[in-house]
Amino acid sequence: MRIAICGGTGDIGEGLALRWAFHSDHEVFIGSRDPERARGKAEEYETELESRGAETKVRGFENAMAADRADVVVLAVPAYHLSDTVEAIADRLDDGTVLVSPAVGMKRDESGMHYNPPSAGSVTQLAANAAPENVPVVGAFHNLAADRLANLDAELDLDTLLVGDDDDALERVSILADSIDGLRPLNAGPVANAAEVESVTPLVINVDMHNDDMHDVGIRFR
Amino acid sequence: MRIAICGGTGDIGEGLALRWAFHSDHEVFIGSRDPERARGKAEEYETELESRGAETKVRGFENAMAADRADVVVLAVPAYHLSDTVEAIADRLDDGTVLVSPAVGMKRDESGMHYNPPSAGSVTQLAANAAPENVPVVGAFHNLAADRLANLDAELDLDTLLVGDDDDALERVSILADSIDGLRPLNAGPVANAAEVESVTPLVINVDMHNDDMHDVGIRFR
Repeated sequence: MRIAICGGTGDIGEGLALRWAFHSDHEVFIGSRDPERARGKAEEYETELESRGAETKVRGFENAMAADRADVVVLAVPAYHLSDTVEAIADRLDDGTVLVSPAVGMKRDESGMHYNPPSAGSVTQLAANAAPENVPVVGAFHNLAADRLANLDAELDLDTLLVGDDDDALERVSILADSIDGLRPLNAGPVANAAEVESVTPLVINVDMHNDDMHDVGIRFR
Repeated sequence: MRIAICGGTGDIGEGLALRWAFHSDHEVFIGSRDPERARGKAEEYETELESRGAETKVRGFENAMAADRADVVVLAVPAYHLSDTVEAIADRLDDGTVLVSPAVGMKRDESGMHYNPPSAGSVTQLAANAAPENVPVVGAFHNLAADRLANLDAELDLDTLLVGDDDDALERVSILADSIDGLRPLNAGPVANAAEVESVTPLVINVDMHNDDMHDVGIRFR
């Protein structure tokens, strides 16, 4: 598949780009509002991948140009940039394109991190509301620690939860998730179930914060 | 320790009672609003435990009588009975007693289960608000499937998340959790972090619902 990662210069975007480029044959396009920055980051990722003997499959583009080339577009941007990003790429999305939303709204206080969803109820729902008709949205990759994902020496052995209303889109993102070594996709149901998935992200950060020897944890269902 | 399980005749109470009685030396008191029902259930649990060669350590009482005898009182009642239950046992709680809240507010729709916290923000916070001063509350045991917990042939190999504002109380409940084979206690921080813990319960039910071959799942952080 051809994967565009809008916001692919950020931390979760970097991890997904490196993992897909390293573990699979998918083509990865790094998107950014600034195409120079996208190209610079793509070169960084290439250097990292080449140092591990991997073939180079990462290129950088302005977000809309990246989306234009892709079968699946990952919206790896902060929740407050999500609607803008979808608007900026909307014209480039075919009916067959799948949008993937990994973002989570959180706020921090002295106790830890807390889930702070947008008024749409979840960030995934916000993405679904912003997406053009006939462009399905799947929520996925919310609960992965960015540093661990971007460290190709780190084993994952983790689950990622998918939510979506379109079975074909869910299947496509499930294949994408499964192509990352050590990552198991699980179906958490329709987009209406996204809040319970997204709220695991502040939880894993709280577990990191309050337990010795736990860093960048993820979750596994068993 | 001496553990009272108010609502110990219900499904999560049954599982906790059987596990503690089977895996540890803790004394377990089953509480119910109806003492006859508590005694009947305690006898059922004894029969189950004796069939496995375990010593009998389970007795049944009216909730306040059970709480009166205990170092730790588990409020294994539905969220909407929580305040009533705390009120009914309040006079019997010493300053040293720890209250444990495993309940979660949920609602079901056609997509699955959803977290539905009380206006206090979480059920654990509701319990903390209802508890007498000097009686600390710890949230724990939220995300365990009742049938799996009550089936002593089922391996757990799971985590349970603890939230609380009192370090000694957290430590005591952590020891209790750790005394169940295959259960690892993790600290998720203060009571203010309870919502993210409680909302895992609808999530595990949704994962059961939407994935073949997943039943009564729990979670493990790694």
